[in-house]
Amino acid sequence: MPHSIAIIGASGYTGAELVRIIATHPSFEIKALAANSKAGQSMAQVFPHLRHLDLPDMVTWEQIDFDQIDLCFCALPHKTSQEVISQLPKTVKIVDLSADFRLRDPAAYEKWYGNKHAAIEMQKEAVYGLTEFYRKEIAAARLVAGTGCNAATGQFILRPLIAAGVIDLDQIILDLQCGVSGAGRSLKENLLHAELSEGTNAYSVGGTHRHLGEFDQEFSAIAGREVKIQFTPHLGPFNRGILATAYLSGDAAQVLATLQAAYADEPFIEVLPMGETPSTHHVRGSNFCHIGVTADRIAGRCIVVAALDNLTKGSSGQAVQNANLMLGEDETAGLMLAPCFP
Amino acid sequence: MPHSIAIIGASGYTGAELVRIIATHPSFEIKALAANSKAGQSMAQVFPHLRHLDLPDMVTWEQIDFDQIDLCFCALPHKTSQEVISQLPKTVKIVDLSADFRLRDPAAYEKWYGNKHAAIEMQKEAVYGLTEFYRKEIAAARLVAGTGCNAATGQFILRPLIAAGVIDLDQIILDLQCGVSGAGRSLKENLLHAELSEGTNAYSVGGTHRHLGEFDQEFSAIAGREVKIQFTPHLGPFNRGILATAYLSGDAAQVLATLQAAYADEPFIEVLPMGETPSTHHVRGSNFCHIGVTADRIAGRCIVVAALDNLTKGSSGQAVQNANLMLGEDETAGLMLAPCFP
Amino acid sequence: MPHSIAIIGASGYTGAELVRIIATHPSFEIKALAANSKAGQSMAQVFPHLRHLDLPDMVTWEQIDFDQIDLCFCALPHKTSQEVISQLPKTVKIVDLSADFRLRDPAAYEKWYGNKHAAIEMQKEAVYGLTEFYRKEIAAARLVAGTGCNAATGQFILRPLIAAGVIDLDQIILDLQCGVSGAGRSLKENLLHAELSEGTNAYSVGGTHRHLGEFDQEFSAIAGREVKIQFTPHLGPFNRGILATAYLSGDAAQVLATLQAAYADEPFIEVLPMGETPSTHHVRGSNFCHIGVTADRIAGRCIVVAALDNLTKGSSGQAVQNANLMLGEDETAGLMLAPCFP
Amino acid sequence: MPHSIAIIGASGYTGAELVRIIATHPSFEIKALAANSKAGQSMAQVFPHLRHLDLPDMVTWEQIDFDQIDLCFCALPHKTSQEVISQLPKTVKIVDLSADFRLRDPAAYEKWYGNKHAAIEMQKEAVYGLTEFYRKEIAAARLVAGTGCNAATGQFILRPLIAAGVIDLDQIILDLQCGVSGAGRSLKENLLHAELSEGTNAYSVGGTHRHLGEFDQEFSAIAGREVKIQFTPHLGPFNRGILATAYLSGDAAQVLATLQAAYADEPFIEVLPMGETPSTHHVRGSNFCHIGVTADRIAGRCIVVAALDNLTKGSSGQAVQNANLMLGEDETAGLMLAPCFP
Repeated sequence: MPHSIAIIGASGYTGAELVRIIATHPSFEIKALAANSKAGQSMAQVFPHLRHLDLPDMVTWEQIDFDQIDLCFCALPHKTSQEVISQLPKTVKIVDLSADFRLRDPAAYEKWYGNKHAAIEMQKEAVYGLTEFYRKEIAAARLVAGTGCNAATGQFILRPLIAAGVIDLDQIILDLQCGVSGAGRSLKENLLHAELSEGTNAYSVGGTHRHLGEFDQEFSAIAGREVKIQFTPHLGPFNRGILATAYLSGDAAQVLATLQAAYADEPFIEVLPMGETPSTHHVRGSNFCHIGVTADRIAGRCIVVAALDNLTKGSSGQAVQNANLMLGEDETAGLMLAPCFP
Repeated sequence: MPHSIAIIGASGYTGAELVRIIATHPSFEIKALAANSKAGQSMAQVFPHLRHLDLPDMVTWEQIDFDQIDLCFCALPHKTSQEVISQLPKTVKIVDLSADFRLRDPAAYEKWYGNKHAAIEMQKEAVYGLTEFYRKEIAAARLVAGTGCNAATGQFILRPLIAAGVIDLDQIILDLQCGVSGAGRSLKENLLHAELSEGTNAYSVGGTHRHLGEFDQEFSAIAGREVKIQFTPHLGPFNRGILATAYLSGDAAQVLATLQAAYADEPFIEVLPMGETPSTHHVRGSNFCHIGVTADRIAGRCIVVAALDNLTKGSSGQAVQNANLMLGEDETAGLMLAPCFP
Repeated sequence: MPHSIAIIGASGYTGAELVRIIATHPSFEIKALAANSKAGQSMAQVFPHLRHLDLPDMVTWEQIDFDQIDLCFCALPHKTSQEVISQLPKTVKIVDLSADFRLRDPAAYEKWYGNKHAAIEMQKEAVYGLTEFYRKEIAAARLVAGTGCNAATGQFILRPLIAAGVIDLDQIILDLQCGVSGAGRSLKENLLHAELSEGTNAYSVGGTHRHLGEFDQEFSAIAGREVKIQFTPHLGPFNRGILATAYLSGDAAQVLATLQAAYADEPFIEVLPMGETPSTHHVRGSNFCHIGVTADRIAGRCIVVAALDNLTKGSSGQAVQNANLMLGEDETAGLMLAPCFP
Repeated sequence: MPHSIAIIGASGYTGAELVRIIATHPSFEIKALAANSKAGQSMAQVFPHLRHLDLPDMVTWEQIDFDQIDLCFCALPHKTSQEVISQLPKTVKIVDLSADFRLRDPAAYEKWYGNKHAAIEMQKEAVYGLTEFYRKEIAAARLVAGTGCNAATGQFILRPLIAAGVIDLDQIILDLQCGVSGAGRSLKENLLHAELSEGTNAYSVGGTHRHLGEFDQEFSAIAGREVKIQFTPHLGPFNRGILATAYLSGDAAQVLATLQAAYADEPFIEVLPMGETPSTHHVRGSNFCHIGVTADRIAGRCIVVAALDNLTKGSSGQAVQNANLMLGEDETAGLMLAPCFP
């Protein structure tokens, strides 16, 4: 018997991506779709690419009968998310895709997001949703906080290396290019086709991007000391995909061996042979992450590049992966969709 | 027990698309991949987006043991395709994606493709692979000829209307925009990103596009008289998708009713409400075709727009749909992948 | 001594394009830039690509001292444009880029634009700004109404053919693909990169696009009888460019000869040899229009394709061309910029 | 009286860009266009966007009468370039756009380009063509070697900072995204629209990109010691533009002040206010370079981002700038074209 699923915030890109994945999931059934601004509309009106599916119409989240729901994905903006989630019945399992429950320290949350956290008690029970590293906790959790998409990409490169002590913790630079769907379906001038296509630019330069909160929290915890990386994202003229290029002080062979060992049994993480570099083209629309290591010409330095799809592995695919664990399903259920190339 | 599948011509885009679809097909197993120019290479080398799959290495088609193959997809260029297929054992079922067995009249083939047909006997047994209209014949066939991607799109609009006699057969204009993957993985100057992106142009103007051979054959057969349409394709700066805009003399309400009736039970054809128009964005990566009808301001004329993904519904998805029928599987098996948007 | 120029509505794409062109114009000097919503900002803030220019800061249009202005470009939205222009001193020459003064019949204006015209008296003095066909009137005009960008493209194909009587007036179909800058800098969901790139769709299907008002007015006047064409625009995933494909009943050789004769001395209209087709790639960023004629396989029918840049020849370039005439300059001054390819 | 110009290698993108610029140059006149593989063709056939210009047909370079040529641009591939240039009369001034005369040390040339230099004597007279830093030498030179486009971008950031001693020379990381026109008009699979659009990837990772030869030569000369930077280029899905992101150890305020001082009088280099970041969108099609400095959250580190158009400022625009100096013209002649946005 399938699990009954609700999605709150179904009118955004991560909401649509959840529906896309669940459309061919063997044991999830969508019972409710909420988007308060679109309540009353059909999914075909909001996202015509999903019109072939037999889906419930949009409602407000308050209209959902949570007694009938096993697990609820919450794909709302941060701040709104904590307000809504704190009002949901405590019996329903929740995978939150917002930033609201990622940072364990309320002060860090306030620093990066600019508002006081309004659900501090719930924050305590939340598990950080980077599946490959919190598998056991996620399986037992009621509330899982999906990671930032950039934060996931950087951690796939750096967590094993920090844990193994094979890189200089004070010389970590993460340069990243992100597709525009990461910015959501919001109406901003710089997200218009006419402004964004045919070029690129950096943003949140100088250590101001909010996903640094996650990097700081996680890397410092792993290292047992404060770790601060440099991180510059760029906005690229493509819709899906994150390419992270990490500049590291460390031996390339050791770095590669560490990543290979860490991900040997992972179904979604592919470590490439030495010297090969991944491309976002080759993970588009899938839950896979490709990682490649190359030695620099300067001895003792190396470059590690990782590619994933921000909407899938970086967000909604990760969310389904976590939901699979929380509901006792095979972790890969519904997620073996091959990348869509070209 | 799964069906054993071979793919000849696995290094092109339609070959890769077949693998992408079969990757999550419940009852197909890829036993052999052939691409004579890439024999000895792994699929990960030829198409890195498929590296997570456990696939056989590329071989030459001559190396395939066809005793172990239930069905073979042939994704070679035309002319090569007929040469290869005529040498395959007569016991293996074949879905050909090339143009070689689409035209029943050898003279028509020679006219449109410029070379004499070298397997005229096989041509006689081939069934035209537009699933929705040749279902019974396809289920019984040994050799099915996949349609042209533009030809499929135009026929989804026009076949029911010609059959029902609701449009003027001498005033059919089909204007079409096609994504670049329709041109294959060939190295041509006009397919370079620098030449193709940021603009558009018409090509094969004036009734010279080869898919007109299919239109002429099929439409004339349905009408019981010669039907010649006007057809201009354009090359658009996008990878997947065909948008066909048909200008017709006929009553819009009657046209819509005819299409709704024709496709009422079709799992992959979605007819939109009167006045709505489809978009290729909303079928990308899927086997769906969306069709919309709008009345023109000039009485007695209407516009019908259809959208599909040339690589999926227009080619490899159609091929799998046909293979499902030929192997006694559910026609939709493996094909309910939701479109990938954005 | 240079002419003093003002631009009202300088924060939109056509405003920016005017500045781009005037930046290297030999005898125009920008004395005032107005954009009421951005008053007080510098051009570098509003359009960083113009930061190298020594330009006045944005003001409100009410702040402009029109005594010092020879000619004012007005690049406001329709409706706003007539309100502003009717308040400007009658001594200043005006090139309006909006739709407000294109339609001579106030009823037609109201039909297509949904609001009553509020400056009917001024409408009477306005000259329709399709330079190649209203040259003399424009040179003498105080108020010139720039044409719609789609309307310009269609007229470059059709005006000489209608005038010469070489095509069937009841069988004119104009299919058009337009780049997204034609929609302006407005924040709409369908103009986001994530929604618009990687695909295409039709819009304003069925004879509802406003530029039909211009076609109806102009073509009927030329023919001396009512002429109604069919016209379907499509939105393409590129920023600049219009490609118009006209399906006509007429002899291709006669059509080509008519166009060649009409444009033999035109500096910006290039008629291609028989059978060649233009591309928007090859006019991008320029004031040129390329036109190609091909005979269809159906005797007596032909296809004419035209390409221009909607922001330049379709709007701001045309506006400068008209201003040159109004100010007694060489018509091509500042406009011989070569297209930017790739 | 205009200077007589020849272009050898006119069928590539840098050749076309030279023609585009010279089309509105006040004192250059193109007298000969050579492209041996296209000899006999018109420019309209090779580059239809230039069809409005009155240009000589393509010839072989051997057919050019150099007695009538004041300056010859050579836009050939490296290796071919040195072979051709060594056969040209010594009286003609040459701006070479290839890599052949950039590296003063023949061993360095052989190391990076894989073939022995065949014109070592000419190498000695060649002046490195980074105009802003070799102005005087260029004005007096007969043979100027245009820089690599990536090399130019990196040097605009780093030269003043190395010269001023305000950054740590052992901690320079240059991360770069380059548009695809930088790869030229060559037929390679990864340059196809279907492979390149909708994603990004790194290439020449680990210090293997040939432009490092220029960085090593120039930075070591300025510093008076060996300087080796880390440099990773990425291929972006856009045609024109380079965005370089430099990670530096140094005080942001000092870095900004140094750049502002260095470029205060430069017509083409725009240094942005502290904390602003440039975009390739805003330099497209122009000879401008925008540079922005931001302090990192880690004390003592900063990020400097530079944007230019690889075909213009990174190649053909730079070439014309150098030619202006060599022919005694104003350095900015023909080069004040405003960027083409959107």
